[in-house]
Amino acid sequence: MRIDVLTLFPRMFEGPLRESILGKAIEKELLAVYVHNFRDFSDNKHQQVDDYPYGGGAGMLLKAQPIHASLEAIRESSPATSKRVVLLDPAGKKFDQSLAEEFSEEEHLIFICGHYEGYDERIRSFVTDEVSLGDYVLTGGELGAMVMIDATVRLLPEVLGNDESAKTDSHSTGLLEHPQYTRPAEYLGMEVPEVLRNGNHKLIAEWQLKESLRRTYLRRPEMLEQLELTDEMEKMLQEISQEEARAVDKEKL
Amino acid sequence: MRIDVLTLFPRMFEGPLRESILGKAIEKELLAVYVHNFRDFSDNKHQQVDDYPYGGGAGMLLKAQPIHASLEAIRESSPATSKRVVLLDPAGKKFDQSLAEEFSEEEHLIFICGHYEGYDERIRSFVTDEVSLGDYVLTGGELGAMVMIDATVRLLPEVLGNDESAKTDSHSTGLLEHPQYTRPAEYLGMEVPEVLRNGNHKLIAEWQLKESLRRTYLRRPEMLEQLELTDEMEKMLQEISQEEARAVDKEKL
Repeated sequence: MRIDVLTLFPRMFEGPLRESILGKAIEKELLAVYVHNFRDFSDNKHQQVDDYPYGGGAGMLLKAQPIHASLEAIRESSPATSKRVVLLDPAGKKFDQSLAEEFSEEEHLIFICGHYEGYDERIRSFVTDEVSLGDYVLTGGELGAMVMIDATVRLLPEVLGNDESAKTDSHSTGLLEHPQYTRPAEYLGMEVPEVLRNGNHKLIAEWQLKESLRRTYLRRPEMLEQLELTDEMEKMLQEISQEEARAVDKEKL
Repeated sequence: MRIDVLTLFPRMFEGPLRESILGKAIEKELLAVYVHNFRDFSDNKHQQVDDYPYGGGAGMLLKAQPIHASLEAIRESSPATSKRVVLLDPAGKKFDQSLAEEFSEEEHLIFICGHYEGYDERIRSFVTDEVSLGDYVLTGGELGAMVMIDATVRLLPEVLGNDESAKTDSHSTGLLEHPQYTRPAEYLGMEVPEVLRNGNHKLIAEWQLKESLRRTYLRRPEMLEQLELTDEMEKMLQEISQEEARAVDKEKL
């Protein structure tokens, strides 16, 4: 996979691209990332990339020309026939796991990271996707691009050491992950549940499914509506709702 | 504000902390960020920080001890009476602008970035918040912590150059931002709308409000339900729904 990033702050990417899973994917040549400063593509003699908004208002807008010229240069250098051009923007579609999966199927991704107050509207006509990281405002698109790159690249074949790991995480199964414990069996008075220590695989699997359901029921009940529940899961959810109601009653006493 | 980060990949933070708004806030001494490798706090002679999960399963879990010891060391070194200890976790509460605002009121924030398959459950008892960046899975908590730090720090007084900028962004007003344009008036055949060029402030403000409503109506209609609409906004929304219905009809022809 090839990824190009357009940014005014290329050095922000140095740490994240060198470390962790992205660094490893680049080392293994599963991924090539090119970070471009789009200021270099400005046709203005002062290399200006922003200007005042028409109609007034606070802040500066990114001009269309440097972005357009950068995209043209990338297009000329890339043999990929299909490209996804992603504009990082708080008004865009919310990024989620299924978009990460879509991105991971692409040969070539391009991320445009804004800064300042916003984009000249015409920049939107150069892109295939306008994507937001979530309902919060960031100083620029750089961290958003890093997040999307990380979520996408970890789905590429051979990037994660263990094939299983990508699949059993929260949000991949549609349920939040159950509680997990490692040694020691007791730490600061807190014990690992007996069932996890006795080695009966069937009971362990049941406990894990039930506690996944419990965490999802308590924290993200709307996720359950998206799932096709088995009879076993329905029964567990009934038990959970009774157990939790009793727990609340106890607290009231 | 003081921020401490617990991570196994401290170098990931180098670029983002040096550049952009975070670098500036640190330079102006509005912010101090300490990045700790919690491996240094392991009491294991091999400085082990992870171990196999009880009950089996793929991947490794972060042990409770190194996290607990790091937090104790930070507590001893900080005079702040109130601390928010934030665990980055896909099963946590979703990060949003109101949580960023809460965080920006704190004196001292601590972020715990996981890696590997997950946390020993007992780590959750050391924290005040379990927070997720969104419905997607990342390799580790580092990028999530950077995003939350950026969203929080830009809300601190004196960090952004222009007080207005923080307030008029998408998600701060409850509406997505209207289209914006800067020079030139025509680029690649695309023109800036006439109303923005004629300088009538009242008409410009009306156009901006209507186009904010239109973008929100088309992309994130559920955001409108959260708002108290004025009579003017109600009327604009009626016009928008008629205009958009006509646009769809035209496309069908």
